[in-house]
Amino acid sequence: MNKPLILDGSKVAEHMKDQLAVRVAALAEEEVVPCLATILVGDDPSSATYVRMKGNACKRIGIRSIRVDLPASTTTEQLIETIQQLNDDGSVHGILLQHPVPHHIDERAAFEAIAIEKDVDGVTTLGFAQNAFGFAQYPSCTPAAILAILDYYDIPIEGKHAVVIGRSPILGKPVSAMLLNRNATVTTCHSRTNGLPALVGLGDIVVAAVGKAKFVQGDWIKPGAVVLDAGYNEGNVGDADYEACSERASAITPVPAGVGPVTIATLLKHTVDSAERAASR
Amino acid sequence: MNKPLILDGSKVAEHMKDQLAVRVAALAEEEVVPCLATILVGDDPSSATYVRMKGNACKRIGIRSIRVDLPASTTTEQLIETIQQLNDDGSVHGILLQHPVPHHIDERAAFEAIAIEKDVDGVTTLGFAQNAFGFAQYPSCTPAAILAILDYYDIPIEGKHAVVIGRSPILGKPVSAMLLNRNATVTTCHSRTNGLPALVGLGDIVVAAVGKAKFVQGDWIKPGAVVLDAGYNEGNVGDADYEACSERASAITPVPAGVGPVTIATLLKHTVDSAERAASR
Repeated sequence: MNKPLILDGSKVAEHMKDQLAVRVAALAEEEVVPCLATILVGDDPSSATYVRMKGNACKRIGIRSIRVDLPASTTTEQLIETIQQLNDDGSVHGILLQHPVPHHIDERAAFEAIAIEKDVDGVTTLGFAQNAFGFAQYPSCTPAAILAILDYYDIPIEGKHAVVIGRSPILGKPVSAMLLNRNATVTTCHSRTNGLPALVGLGDIVVAAVGKAKFVQGDWIKPGAVVLDAGYNEGNVGDADYEACSERASAITPVPAGVGPVTIATLLKHTVDSAERAASR
Repeated sequence: MNKPLILDGSKVAEHMKDQLAVRVAALAEEEVVPCLATILVGDDPSSATYVRMKGNACKRIGIRSIRVDLPASTTTEQLIETIQQLNDDGSVHGILLQHPVPHHIDERAAFEAIAIEKDVDGVTTLGFAQNAFGFAQYPSCTPAAILAILDYYDIPIEGKHAVVIGRSPILGKPVSAMLLNRNATVTTCHSRTNGLPALVGLGDIVVAAVGKAKFVQGDWIKPGAVVLDAGYNEGNVGDADYEACSERASAITPVPAGVGPVTIATLLKHTVDSAERAASR
């Protein structure tokens, strides 16, 4: 029976947070406290859970967190006004607008309102392009987390064929760009892809970012491939069929405790990066 | 013997220019003359030829063209100053900085200086990201030309596997993004790709954007594939071996008279688009 390496996201995240704690302590000497502002619009329970988890993670390593809760009836204009106030607030180093927002809000316009130097979640178009061109300060957190996991376990990327399933602006597209910039050959697949199983079977690295529980089947995976599951669906399951994929993969992220905790650690890291940049200005 | 459809770029470009002439005439009624400013730094002879061709193409359909020639010794700061003057000049609707610039110049910084509403060549990071997200006003001209050729000949893109060879910021990356947004499955290959021939052989649509004469071999091509050659190398040859690829392709662009003339027509179209937008403000 195949025994893949379990890519332990909790361990990667702990390592990152240990490093961050040192930097937060150094900033405290200069009387700077990194601060992340999180905006939650409406009362989607899983979004509320994410926001709470992020707030707790901040607290544990000495990052201040501000939580702005807005009613579901908030207009795009009101949301943008809130964002602009946070842009103007010198004590705030990072702004996270929890995705998704209610349908009547123009999410893209709201994302664009975030000042580039506080866009620690990499959601602005400018941040996206800087990332695609390889010089972003803050790439989107989940894509960056996927790369951080590969790097922590010293899994080579250059020259490998990476197959990304999903093309969202905050996950599939930026992770494709980042893998390409690390010299992987990248195939981006999506709902209109024909012959998906055979294409996934080409991947040395497979990124599941499709948002459907257990979508990626075990027999799609090339023996020895590395599987990174960025999904998180009802019932605590990812986008890949973990048990079945484990039969073939050489390494795989579990769900939970895979990409998720590293995404949060990446958000904290970007907030500390931003606080250091602000302190040195 | 296989007889592919020759994707005649001159014909596509003529069709586009016929449509543009009507729009230029309508603008003339409002006393608006579309104007493209082209900046050439240094005296690279092939760049000078491109700039001259673009100027002549403008003239033929009634677009005014301004040519700014700067010496090879121009600094990044001086170049940016020139660009800013053109940004501020209300009579200029499009700005093209001829690529490449001399090595001592920070080309990225110069591109970034172009105002987004005059970035008719789609070279700014913001323009790139808007294109990747599917809402750019002006995608890069060569990628847009490739799509225009496919559309002119009614070649389906959705659900097809497109293989792009090359990942430059103005060609490989944006054309990959545009094909993805048109629901192709996209594989982006480059100099570090392993097993390139087999990957190219998966492509229903193959885009050669690598900058090496006759690089793409005929026996790499899947029988029936569509080959788009964005290369233009010494000796008037493209990045694909035209004769050999023609043995297998169902459709192919020649070099010259393939992608090149449509790229120029696209630049003219974007300039007219920009003039119309300025006139309606």
